[in-house]
Amino acid sequence: MKAVGLIVEYNPFHNGHAYHLQAAKDATKAEIVIAVMSGNFLQRGEPALVSKWQRTRMALLNGVDIVFELPYQFAVQKAETFANGAVSILDATGCDFLCFGSESGDISLFHRTIDYLELEKKAFDEKVKQFVTTGVSYPKALSLAFQQLTDSRMYLDLSKPNNILGIEYIKAIKKLKSSLQPITITRKNADYHDDHFASATIASATSIRKALFTTENDNSLIEQYVPEHTSQLLEEYYHYYSDFHQWENYWGFLQFRLLQSSPYELKEIYEIEEGIENRLIAAAIESQNFKEFMEKIKTKRYTWTRLQRMCTHILTNARKTEMTANTEKATYLRLLGMTQKGKEYLNKRKAHFSLPLVSKLSSFKEKEISLDIKAARIYSFGVPNHLRLEMVKKEFQQPPIYLD
Amino acid sequence: MKAVGLIVEYNPFHNGHAYHLQAAKDATKAEIVIAVMSGNFLQRGEPALVSKWQRTRMALLNGVDIVFELPYQFAVQKAETFANGAVSILDATGCDFLCFGSESGDISLFHRTIDYLELEKKAFDEKVKQFVTTGVSYPKALSLAFQQLTDSRMYLDLSKPNNILGIEYIKAIKKLKSSLQPITITRKNADYHDDHFASATIASATSIRKALFTTENDNSLIEQYVPEHTSQLLEEYYHYYSDFHQWENYWGFLQFRLLQSSPYELKEIYEIEEGIENRLIAAAIESQNFKEFMEKIKTKRYTWTRLQRMCTHILTNARKTEMTANTEKATYLRLLGMTQKGKEYLNKRKAHFSLPLVSKLSSFKEKEISLDIKAARIYSFGVPNHLRLEMVKKEFQQPPIYLD
Repeated sequence: MKAVGLIVEYNPFHNGHAYHLQAAKDATKAEIVIAVMSGNFLQRGEPALVSKWQRTRMALLNGVDIVFELPYQFAVQKAETFANGAVSILDATGCDFLCFGSESGDISLFHRTIDYLELEKKAFDEKVKQFVTTGVSYPKALSLAFQQLTDSRMYLDLSKPNNILGIEYIKAIKKLKSSLQPITITRKNADYHDDHFASATIASATSIRKALFTTENDNSLIEQYVPEHTSQLLEEYYHYYSDFHQWENYWGFLQFRLLQSSPYELKEIYEIEEGIENRLIAAAIESQNFKEFMEKIKTKRYTWTRLQRMCTHILTNARKTEMTANTEKATYLRLLGMTQKGKEYLNKRKAHFSLPLVSKLSSFKEKEISLDIKAARIYSFGVPNHLRLEMVKKEFQQPPIYLD
Repeated sequence: MKAVGLIVEYNPFHNGHAYHLQAAKDATKAEIVIAVMSGNFLQRGEPALVSKWQRTRMALLNGVDIVFELPYQFAVQKAETFANGAVSILDATGCDFLCFGSESGDISLFHRTIDYLELEKKAFDEKVKQFVTTGVSYPKALSLAFQQLTDSRMYLDLSKPNNILGIEYIKAIKKLKSSLQPITITRKNADYHDDHFASATIASATSIRKALFTTENDNSLIEQYVPEHTSQLLEEYYHYYSDFHQWENYWGFLQFRLLQSSPYELKEIYEIEEGIENRLIAAAIESQNFKEFMEKIKTKRYTWTRLQRMCTHILTNARKTEMTANTEKATYLRLLGMTQKGKEYLNKRKAHFSLPLVSKLSSFKEKEISLDIKAARIYSFGVPNHLRLEMVKKEFQQPPIYLD
């Protein structure tokens, strides 16, 4: 029984994801689809629209067989660490393929680009450094340097976020000496960051979220872009919690933490350095909401995503010591859900998994999982007060979602 | 120009306070009344009903000439440290008398009790220790030990909180070798903690606050117990902020901080020790509101007041290192308000003050005041979101209240 692995956020699951899932199965002839999914906070430093449990249901109802959680310490990270965590989880399950979407769609370009970056590391790093000193962000410097050094027809475009992720996935496979075979599929239409609808059936998750927030859960606008199950599960969630999760729900708590902290304490939080701590505190005193706050702290030097990740780490109190303890490889497999077929696969294979399988939080006492627990607790501050405790407790009591 | 000093919270200023103020003037023939008043958080570990600025107005309109703030690091403290701070401020201004209310009303009993406690320190401490091991709180052990050792007709009743405070005031005067002359006046009727109305015109602040909270600012219930100015100032505040401050307003933020903290981090907070940190986190996960939370953490060992002070310190992030840096003596005089007469007194005397006079926060950069700044910022999380920033900024811009 061949298995293909996907690395996802499903925020929310939409037609583009369904297309990618089917294409991954077609390309690999795999019978089992394993998804490694970010938990309640995402790589862009944002709370997920709906909880990881609801997003797991979306995944299972749309063709994924097994969902593992990408632990917080890998999920809310730059591409390299994100890839290390996700790939190490797929590798630990003995998965055969890793199939990722990319702007390029040509796996040979990935290999050639990685080879170039290894061979010409010194010249490339030099060039990146030059661009960084002009004041641009690191990702921008990276793509500018590469563009200047290479022929664009022969290599990847490093200004595209999914190309960058793909490179990191393949590098992680190499580092782990994993037998995972990387496959890439061209992304359909929508750019990652597009915030408007550009096609009849495929739209970016960003544009779907935007529509949901501006219309206050009027699903008619998004129905053509998401499977019916997604639409139902979103509606169900909204109905129960009267809201989706977004940064503004957490603003008061972030502001509170910033106003009670000294710059010295803030520097214990992951990614807080170079004096940004003073800037954050000063901006918190002047901002009525998260958007205002972000606009105040934004500079050319830091990407919006990196700043949002900092804010997430302050919110969850993710410290340098915790976040840097292990950035190379996951240490557990947190099972969020499975179909009947997924369960069969697990039963057959789990004895050979190279990492412990965690089905219930209460039975896993390792220190590494404490960040996921904190993240789940803090995520609950985005729902109305009277539902908060119930959500916190659910994290401990919820068995993996099972779809038979 | 003789001055009499009072140590107050005015939460809010009521007829009992007016009576005490007049009695202090009568007893000392002082022309000037100087009050040292707790800021936004009080000795019982609670947010003040209304801000220190509004309470300063109450004081000035009712006969106080000068109001100094008792810094957070002394205000939210056990009796001894509270007294050290307050007495050192009065001493620094060259004030002549300290007049405090007490259950006893007989200053000679205070002196005799203090002498006894000094002479019989060893026997007394031994006895207190015995009672502590039975599991009762420290204050309770203290009064039980004293009761067992002494003849109650000759000495103070140490179960009365104002007797305890009085003892600490006099001890502080001795330690400072201050020329302040202590005077005590019997408290009228109401017990400190009484929560019901027991007289026609005098009621405890506790009962007044209770009436305000249960009637949602229907002042008719409290009018007979407070001067007209208090009633007006309370109404004005409530009208502007749509609320008074109470612990429940801050519950979400306390819960947030407890759920994002590790026990190890909590132990950096002042007064958090002996494993109470684990108990606090566990209770926070189970409590819908502050009252529920307090009932969960209450034990015989800790008084309600001490637990509330812990909660206040967690809320303001007051760390052991900050709170214990100096517990003997204030290091600045923060002027909150003055009448015309108060101003004349200040102009005449301030050159001889033994501590720096702080009229505006922006002009005082010493590290010691950072706790007061944090406390003011955090206090603003008790008002509606859209008024929060305005309140935070006010702390920096507000000159002392001046009543001419």
